[in-house]
Amino acid sequence: MPLIELLRSELGPESVLTGDAVSARLAGAWGRPEPLRARALLRPADTHALSTALRLCHAARQPVVIVGGGSGLVEGHRTGPDDIALSLERLDRIESIDLAGRTLTAQAGVVLERIQRAAEEAGLLFPLDLGARGSATIGGNVATNAGGNRVLRYGMTRQLVLGLEVVLADGTVVSSLNRLLKNNAGYDLKQLFIGSEGTLGVVTRVVLRLLPQPRSHLTAVAACDDFPALAGLLGHMDAALGGTLGAFEVLWGDYLRFLLEPGSPHRAPLPTSHAYYVLLDMLGGDPAGDPERFESALAGALEAGLVADAVLAKSRAEQAAWWSLRDDVFRLQQLRPLFMFDVGVPISEVEGYVANVQGRLQREFPGSTCHVFGHLGDGNLHLGVSAGPEDGSARHAVEEAVYRPLAAFGGSVSAEHGIGLEKRDWLAVSRNEGEIALMRLLKQSLDPRGILNPGRVLAA
Amino acid sequence: MPLIELLRSELGPESVLTGDAVSARLAGAWGRPEPLRARALLRPADTHALSTALRLCHAARQPVVIVGGGSGLVEGHRTGPDDIALSLERLDRIESIDLAGRTLTAQAGVVLERIQRAAEEAGLLFPLDLGARGSATIGGNVATNAGGNRVLRYGMTRQLVLGLEVVLADGTVVSSLNRLLKNNAGYDLKQLFIGSEGTLGVVTRVVLRLLPQPRSHLTAVAACDDFPALAGLLGHMDAALGGTLGAFEVLWGDYLRFLLEPGSPHRAPLPTSHAYYVLLDMLGGDPAGDPERFESALAGALEAGLVADAVLAKSRAEQAAWWSLRDDVFRLQQLRPLFMFDVGVPISEVEGYVANVQGRLQREFPGSTCHVFGHLGDGNLHLGVSAGPEDGSARHAVEEAVYRPLAAFGGSVSAEHGIGLEKRDWLAVSRNEGEIALMRLLKQSLDPRGILNPGRVLAA
Repeated sequence: MPLIELLRSELGPESVLTGDAVSARLAGAWGRPEPLRARALLRPADTHALSTALRLCHAARQPVVIVGGGSGLVEGHRTGPDDIALSLERLDRIESIDLAGRTLTAQAGVVLERIQRAAEEAGLLFPLDLGARGSATIGGNVATNAGGNRVLRYGMTRQLVLGLEVVLADGTVVSSLNRLLKNNAGYDLKQLFIGSEGTLGVVTRVVLRLLPQPRSHLTAVAACDDFPALAGLLGHMDAALGGTLGAFEVLWGDYLRFLLEPGSPHRAPLPTSHAYYVLLDMLGGDPAGDPERFESALAGALEAGLVADAVLAKSRAEQAAWWSLRDDVFRLQQLRPLFMFDVGVPISEVEGYVANVQGRLQREFPGSTCHVFGHLGDGNLHLGVSAGPEDGSARHAVEEAVYRPLAAFGGSVSAEHGIGLEKRDWLAVSRNEGEIALMRLLKQSLDPRGILNPGRVLAA
Repeated sequence: MPLIELLRSELGPESVLTGDAVSARLAGAWGRPEPLRARALLRPADTHALSTALRLCHAARQPVVIVGGGSGLVEGHRTGPDDIALSLERLDRIESIDLAGRTLTAQAGVVLERIQRAAEEAGLLFPLDLGARGSATIGGNVATNAGGNRVLRYGMTRQLVLGLEVVLADGTVVSSLNRLLKNNAGYDLKQLFIGSEGTLGVVTRVVLRLLPQPRSHLTAVAACDDFPALAGLLGHMDAALGGTLGAFEVLWGDYLRFLLEPGSPHRAPLPTSHAYYVLLDMLGGDPAGDPERFESALAGALEAGLVADAVLAKSRAEQAAWWSLRDDVFRLQQLRPLFMFDVGVPISEVEGYVANVQGRLQREFPGSTCHVFGHLGDGNLHLGVSAGPEDGSARHAVEEAVYRPLAAFGGSVSAEHGIGLEKRDWLAVSRNEGEIALMRLLKQSLDPRGILNPGRVLAA
């Protein structure tokens, strides 16, 4: 029996869409996505059905691409006409919350925002947060080791996952639903699947760690006039707030000024002539004492000459307004063409790296723009580059300018977005031959026929 | 040429000890260790020499056992006369500290305490801390994903490692010396080697994460009269101290009373009639404000009825005295025979689990003792059981009583000590067939001839 018919007979017709039912769907959640292209779209109802489907695809050497929430930024979910697309949209149950143990167990297709809300309703916090919270699924967050806005305080997704259930390429189900904070009984298998972008297995269930809700949330904006002061401010605030520094988001001065250009809905929190602006969050436990503590930590930074100017948010509205300034990445879309980047750079190298990239872009593309912002506390920069003709044909040269220097600065071509298809050819800039050979060995061992998310991370 | 001669000619005679030079060494750091037994002891001078050695051993299918600092608690470093013992004692350099990036790079043979000290001298903190700090090597800490006293605040070793250099079984060197907090460029290979107890590769260099030194360190002892109050206290303090709760160490009342029996050097911090005693640490950033904060968090717990009694340390000496009470595990050695255990149990199941174990032990060994203490904040219990005849012949029955119920309670046969040889036959209590099969697949892929730490974690 041909594969598609076999899948239909084993999984039921509602689990196997083809033809118009496939192209009626969109390939992705951003911008203006195209219709989904795929041989079929699988929507298994549970882990068992998914296991059956993979077993059949494995036997037929059929490539399977996991489409997730479609909000990935590195084309990991892009399908071709010969792929089978796999959606976990029906695995959408939050199965349990353990209040004392502070864990939440959910199926992989649950959208992040639902998990955040369920934790909140239980009086707890699931700290992972990112712009795509309304479309990204927790399975996709795990597969990409998502980062976002609170990594400085709570870590990446990896740090928030206790257990996983995974289906391997041949349909084998590995249920490793650990609920313990500490468990050294054998290999920590979940680590293999977190951040490997669905190339080693399909995450079907997750056990997540919940945390106490912060009882205070304070925000400030500080301005620094040089990079050493900025790096010093990070160290100072991190130490002074003793574990409660929630965010240290930096906007390079030019980028802030761009965001405030005529027509902008935003207002400047501080005079706009400084070199760097930092959005600082404190997430604390003591609503009575924390404001004074936050203020005195900032006052200490002013006295130490680390900060040129600073202002504390006096209301929720002000807090929200400043964060919306940080989050208004979409404003960059006014620039055409626009190339967005997510890179990691050791903090000690950030200034040199940015100067290198901007210098090279100015030489190769006079008049080009390179805006810089990001989670400096994590060494994670985002760059918005506008260079070359409107048709985007300068993409490769811009990528060269941004990625190539990372090797010398000890940086990474992906801090939080992953590799997917988009960055695959740049992987060797930040990983050496030995590392890539070991990645290939793992891929070969777990998916010898190369059917799972083929070509993602590593060339097929 | 026979293997030993080959190793001598390639590595130099000072790197290959045999005969008396081997048996003059001790097999382990605890108690009264026996002379080391091994075909030879290798002491390679650098990664290259280690790579050569493993290549030769691999070709000869020669089992290699890594001896580390000898302070492991699960017989991971036990060698037999046909093994080659591998020591990384000459890889003992701290190579660099990056102050801005807050990383420390060291060779794997450096003893933990030296790393702690180097971080401190640089004005920073390497938070991993455990009793064996003076003998355990950082390579062994990484290989066993060591836990210890500050996991609640800073995580296990896994969370403190940014990059690794590893030599695989066949001598291949994989250098993955990442220095970034966030790096999603391909698979996070280091995770494979952290906690896999040297069975997948030999760690030769590490890049560690350093943190700001806490500026305040406060200690209290609280007494609780029932388990729900104890669990409630953990949740309350964790939330109230907003990320600065440094330890939540619990001593069951009977154990505290045992520690204070006549002849004890310790003094009771509180009346000794309560069911549970908690040693609480706050590691904060605000020396001026933190004491008030800590006190008011405890006062809140008293008001909420979570705590029956509590006292704050008023001096460094008092702090040290209370911690020495917690750390005086050696006092248990008065009991004979003594079987010590390290298990993980979800907090919501701890009370039921302990009652189950103690009940079973009382039935099977009337008059036996089972003392309980541990890092309750991490769900990590230690049990000191004295049961059966002095010759220790009751060991298996005691292990049955302690380990077997863990399956039903969702617990783990090892929270922080690992599996080694000692717990290997119990692994299946807390890991299922699918998990163990995947562990075997990884072992087979990375060490197909099974020469590295054979029999550790998984039967050879």
